[in-house]
Amino acid sequence: MHDVTHVLIVLFVAYVGAQLGAEVAQRLRMPAVVGEICAGMALGPSGLGWVASGESLDTLAELGAVLLLFSVGLETRASDLRRVGRVATYVGVAGVALPFALGVGWAISARFGTAAAMFVGAAFVATSAGITARVLAELGIVDRLEGRVILGAAVIDDILAMLLLGVVTALLRGGGVNAIGLALVLLQAVAFVAVVLLVGPPAMRRASPYLEAPVNPLSPLTLVLAGCLGLAAAASQIGLAAIIGAFLAGVAAAETSQRHTIELQTRPIMAFLVPFFFVATGTKVVLGHLAGPHAVLTLLLITAIGIIGKLAGCGLGAASLGMRSALVVGVGMVPRGEVGIIVASLGLAAGVFADETYALLIAMSLLTSVVAPPALRALVDRERT
Amino acid sequence: MHDVTHVLIVLFVAYVGAQLGAEVAQRLRMPAVVGEICAGMALGPSGLGWVASGESLDTLAELGAVLLLFSVGLETRASDLRRVGRVATYVGVAGVALPFALGVGWAISARFGTAAAMFVGAAFVATSAGITARVLAELGIVDRLEGRVILGAAVIDDILAMLLLGVVTALLRGGGVNAIGLALVLLQAVAFVAVVLLVGPPAMRRASPYLEAPVNPLSPLTLVLAGCLGLAAAASQIGLAAIIGAFLAGVAAAETSQRHTIELQTRPIMAFLVPFFFVATGTKVVLGHLAGPHAVLTLLLITAIGIIGKLAGCGLGAASLGMRSALVVGVGMVPRGEVGIIVASLGLAAGVFADETYALLIAMSLLTSVVAPPALRALVDRERT
Repeated sequence: MHDVTHVLIVLFVAYVGAQLGAEVAQRLRMPAVVGEICAGMALGPSGLGWVASGESLDTLAELGAVLLLFSVGLETRASDLRRVGRVATYVGVAGVALPFALGVGWAISARFGTAAAMFVGAAFVATSAGITARVLAELGIVDRLEGRVILGAAVIDDILAMLLLGVVTALLRGGGVNAIGLALVLLQAVAFVAVVLLVGPPAMRRASPYLEAPVNPLSPLTLVLAGCLGLAAAASQIGLAAIIGAFLAGVAAAETSQRHTIELQTRPIMAFLVPFFFVATGTKVVLGHLAGPHAVLTLLLITAIGIIGKLAGCGLGAASLGMRSALVVGVGMVPRGEVGIIVASLGLAAGVFADETYALLIAMSLLTSVVAPPALRALVDRERT
Repeated sequence: MHDVTHVLIVLFVAYVGAQLGAEVAQRLRMPAVVGEICAGMALGPSGLGWVASGESLDTLAELGAVLLLFSVGLETRASDLRRVGRVATYVGVAGVALPFALGVGWAISARFGTAAAMFVGAAFVATSAGITARVLAELGIVDRLEGRVILGAAVIDDILAMLLLGVVTALLRGGGVNAIGLALVLLQAVAFVAVVLLVGPPAMRRASPYLEAPVNPLSPLTLVLAGCLGLAAAASQIGLAAIIGAFLAGVAAAETSQRHTIELQTRPIMAFLVPFFFVATGTKVVLGHLAGPHAVLTLLLITAIGIIGKLAGCGLGAASLGMRSALVVGVGMVPRGEVGIIVASLGLAAGVFADETYALLIAMSLLTSVVAPPALRALVDRERT
């Protein structure tokens, strides 16, 4: 019985810590994620030592990440993709390519192996659509041209990030194998994403009426969640990250007519599980790795790389909108969040890189998310006066 | 990475199995629980062997049980208790006392030790308010006198069952200690329930406005869930069952003005987690222990004891309503469910009794829940014609 007690105490402390952290962060006009991860750092082994990861917390964290990416997918409508237009596509593609290239470049210069360097690069890629969307809404510019371009580009960004993550994990798995084996693994990764992305949405559009068939009044939700667990398990089984499957399940579920109900009902489940993911992420950061002049300099360097990569990549992609708008789009795409953090967690779990790199990547993600919103606010305010 | 894959596959199979089982059961007009547990039996080690319990599944199951009892508590308003009247109190008390006495009696005659016998007795006690309420609603008699007595008595039944479970787990922990130590442990159990029950609801009534204070729009839910985890951990820490704390947290949360929102938002979380509890419960049933003439006879015997105990106890309690109404009340109180099943799981986990007893108690709970609803329907239909 002692075990159950211990698990419950850890979960209680982690959950309360996450709520306190999120509250403080949001009151300071920072994203909730920042507070939740800082709470994890404070509670973790290198802080107070009250919460250490174990199988129970890790499983809840994994489910939290799965649900989080499911909900990101749910906000990604395949039909929107066709409408976002050329500029958003340029912004999305350039905003993935440049940060990835810069990240890989830094990692190679810091003497990482090829596979590890690509993993590090992947952690530089994904814009947190959630953070940007919230700031845009606060500023009331969601419907302005820049707002639409940013949100459209974020969708393309998410999908490219998933594809990239698939390729990188496949590369990792195939590391050391011959060129043909490697090509097959890559092909499998790309094929999984492509097939689910092509087959899933139309299938779900047709399946909508059947989702209501079961007796269970919550059945559209429960059936879709079963699909999410299934695709996550399938992705994991073929060597991709589980969250890729969850994301694709969300994209497919977004096409059902019960989309809004599912979104609404997913929120309480996320409110219960996602904090465990961010706290667990924080507990794994060894705070010592962020102290000392060398660590601080490295952190500042990779944060600068992270910011410049997105700013330049997305700004160039949006150049046709004019200098000022391109700047707004570039800054709006800077915040990293969930996906980059999950990529870093995957890298740590797979032993691709050491504690130090993990701590730096998490801190970099947090810093970009803390820095970008006030910059965006300042830019838009200056424009208005 | 393999571990994550394995956990996701197990969770996927368990979740899909639970949904299939619930669907089949409900189509056959049986409670969903029956189908979910049967799915667990089929998938478990003594069935197909696709789902075996491990820390991840167990933790999700534990959280499912915690949420389930939280929601039972949420339906239990302290203020209702004062209104249910004398008859419901008699029904509740007699309906707990007699099944407990009969259960203990059977267990002692079957050569169980004192502590184990009391645990077995406790598994005979709790009526599943959910199953009865659903049948009453289907028959359209929730508002009839018998319906109100049954639902009122079910509330008292739940609280007495929790108190009894507290005493029994305390007894178990104090087993072999001297009389004073034992008395202290018992006192602690009763004091925990009494204090939380007296302090919690008024405190939550006053706390209602503050639940909206945090930035997080889901904060009433998340704060109350944190309280639920905290009380579950506290109950577990002092040697009681975690679900007792969760139940009391629910009773306290029922007094907030956000009660309905919390209830609504708890449902999707339950829809995700509770099936894992019932499937896990089913997987632990060794099917072999339910086969063979001896096992079947024992099962029929304890099911008869379970039915007669409730029927007679509750019927006597409702005698003042007249023969026919007393019978309706008695039959309405027969279905056991969640709580009895959780008590049996706790007994198995604590090593109080062996696999055989666990299998029999689970099967007994299921049988009472399968038998009572049609009997209740038949009774009410005959009355109408």
